[in-house]
Amino acid sequence: MASSYELCCRECGKRYENQPLSICDECFSPLEVRVDLDAAKKTVTRESIAQGPTNMWRYQALLPVPDDYVPQTPAGWTPLVKAPRLAGRIGAKNLYIKNDAVCMPTLSFKDRVVAVALANAQRFGFDTVGCSSTGNLANSVAAQAARLGLKTYILVPADLEAAKILNTQVYGANLIRIDGNYDHVNRLSSQIADRFSWGFVNVNLRPYYAEGSKTVGFEIAEQLSWRLPDNVVVPMAGGSLITKIRKAFKELIALGLVDAKDVRFFGAQATGCSPIARAVKTGADHIEPQRPSTIARSLAIGNPADGIYAAKAIRESGGWAEDVSDVEVVSGIQELAETEGIFTETAGGVTTAVTARLYAHGRIKPDELTVTCITGNGLKTTDVLAGAYEQSEAIRPRLTDFENYINEIKELNELVSGGVDVR
Amino acid sequence: MASSYELCCRECGKRYENQPLSICDECFSPLEVRVDLDAAKKTVTRESIAQGPTNMWRYQALLPVPDDYVPQTPAGWTPLVKAPRLAGRIGAKNLYIKNDAVCMPTLSFKDRVVAVALANAQRFGFDTVGCSSTGNLANSVAAQAARLGLKTYILVPADLEAAKILNTQVYGANLIRIDGNYDHVNRLSSQIADRFSWGFVNVNLRPYYAEGSKTVGFEIAEQLSWRLPDNVVVPMAGGSLITKIRKAFKELIALGLVDAKDVRFFGAQATGCSPIARAVKTGADHIEPQRPSTIARSLAIGNPADGIYAAKAIRESGGWAEDVSDVEVVSGIQELAETEGIFTETAGGVTTAVTARLYAHGRIKPDELTVTCITGNGLKTTDVLAGAYEQSEAIRPRLTDFENYINEIKELNELVSGGVDVR
Repeated sequence: MASSYELCCRECGKRYENQPLSICDECFSPLEVRVDLDAAKKTVTRESIAQGPTNMWRYQALLPVPDDYVPQTPAGWTPLVKAPRLAGRIGAKNLYIKNDAVCMPTLSFKDRVVAVALANAQRFGFDTVGCSSTGNLANSVAAQAARLGLKTYILVPADLEAAKILNTQVYGANLIRIDGNYDHVNRLSSQIADRFSWGFVNVNLRPYYAEGSKTVGFEIAEQLSWRLPDNVVVPMAGGSLITKIRKAFKELIALGLVDAKDVRFFGAQATGCSPIARAVKTGADHIEPQRPSTIARSLAIGNPADGIYAAKAIRESGGWAEDVSDVEVVSGIQELAETEGIFTETAGGVTTAVTARLYAHGRIKPDELTVTCITGNGLKTTDVLAGAYEQSEAIRPRLTDFENYINEIKELNELVSGGVDVR
Repeated sequence: MASSYELCCRECGKRYENQPLSICDECFSPLEVRVDLDAAKKTVTRESIAQGPTNMWRYQALLPVPDDYVPQTPAGWTPLVKAPRLAGRIGAKNLYIKNDAVCMPTLSFKDRVVAVALANAQRFGFDTVGCSSTGNLANSVAAQAARLGLKTYILVPADLEAAKILNTQVYGANLIRIDGNYDHVNRLSSQIADRFSWGFVNVNLRPYYAEGSKTVGFEIAEQLSWRLPDNVVVPMAGGSLITKIRKAFKELIALGLVDAKDVRFFGAQATGCSPIARAVKTGADHIEPQRPSTIARSLAIGNPADGIYAAKAIRESGGWAEDVSDVEVVSGIQELAETEGIFTETAGGVTTAVTARLYAHGRIKPDELTVTCITGNGLKTTDVLAGAYEQSEAIRPRLTDFENYINEIKELNELVSGGVDVR
């Protein structure tokens, strides 16, 4: 390798050095980045990583950015927290949450991939960047590009949640609403990237972009004191994240930073858009595209770019995939908030509900060390909870009014449950 | 001292050991926590702190929690980022943002104070906790109490932003809307805490709670490689935060962790609720309560509990206070987002606009190392941006439609500016 990393075709292996390209011109398969692990092995140790910044750039030597790249945006290094109260509710005993609902800077795991993509956009000399997005990616590209002073064009399905639209426009990005679903938007983005020579993070910069997801896996391992979990539960939209966490674990093993271990991977989708889960469940060797219909709009990709690789990763690992209804998605959001104080968006509701089902069906055993990946923040999809909570009447600011209010709640609770707990 | 910290009266100095109490029974002045710095000096070093977790609990030895306390929620350790593009716009040269818009777990600096308050609620044996809140505190108490399995009663003004209400209810908290402003809510909370023997984080636990804000100051110093800035700009609601950042710097000097330096403190308020800024500007020795009327509802405290101490801290330090209109608040939000990719709530709009004015008026010199404290996330106050951005018509997913759209923008921009930059 001329550099410490380069593009290769995933299927035929053709090498491309480094350029803004995502499809092999020989066999039309997707390209991916290969990092020179032999070279990395000489310099990357647990100690060298610990001396890095407390963000995803502590793993810079394992990411496809130039050696002399100076990161501009702290991203990642989100908490891995034990989840004893959620575990108690769903029959788990050793459950952790990887909480990218508080990922910096824009509250989803997309901040990781965008950070790597924009580093490469700058390297390749693009002054205009863009993406097709179901929302979180839009937020992250708009925010990080603003800080870098890049011009931004972002394409989204016209029916996107209001909070995700505002959280893109506020950074000064050009937001273009497309009359269609994500798959339409994505196809158009490919044409635009070609026609205008812009850096589209999930089109011509996609191989670099996708590597950013490895940092979720690196962090999980480091935060578990450099060991791998038994199981990981991951939401699936395009299908890339689950494959990259697996790649991260394999790289850590190859580098000797963790002991070898066969981690099982479990994929989570909403039933209204479950092409990858379907393929896993039916054992199909291809992905049957679907027309998405779910409130989990950040996962609503009917024709997932990495679907086939996600299904393969799950199967090879001995894992499984599940999908849940929109009602279960809302319950999942509430359950995670009530037990662990983590407010996630619809995608996290999917992952939480799927995790519960995997325990219920015995796919995951209670004692196994399991990590569930929460990938976005609940403040972005508040519309799905509209009507879930009664807006009680305001009371006057007097102690007697408050006492009356409390007594009413108590009586109500006694009526309902026979108990006296007013909560 | 019997413990490594204890309550003392701020005015008469009477000592109270440790108990849920906030007012001196001798002179009716507020109590505050004094940490035994002589004892801390023997164990706390830059190295011991660096070996702690990457959250605010790395400063546990300087916070009023029992020595054997095991933190349950990672909070704090937010980025301190250089802000070159914002600096360029407002005539600064050495400006940093302390970004608590991404504070864990609920996206405001209140996560810091709640973490310390709830540790003490548990220590004192409360099974029910609560607060009066303008929103951010409600979110944080609800989330952190959920994770600890505590019952929660939260009182808010009836007209609070929808996102802040939902982001409290989702955790299962009892939310009580009060027909009045924050000052009414706060008075009622004091009566409730007495009557029900509950742990109200900003009433009977207030001295402990307030100490959590010191971690903003500790982090700023550590992130500047253990030195103090020349100036700090801080939003003011109750007035506590600015005094505690100052206290943090003084403690670090006393511990020998940073060189002594006179840091100037600058306070930021919205004109529609500016009792502390007014006192600073007029040189008054007391705070004249105001009836709040501003979109910056998280700062809308007309009778600030620590107002007099905030004004004193500002004056003693040689700083100043400013207040800005609601229109400037919205511009401040947009300016920070467009230049640095940070989306803050109204309070952050206040702080950004005040910072700009302090440079414009020569109160802060361009070369001085200045830190502006952004304390909450823009997704919580999206309503103030309603109407700020045009919702353009959706276009069909075809390249020709996109090209037409781009040409229209270009023509529009040329008309408006005579330029060709389509952004």
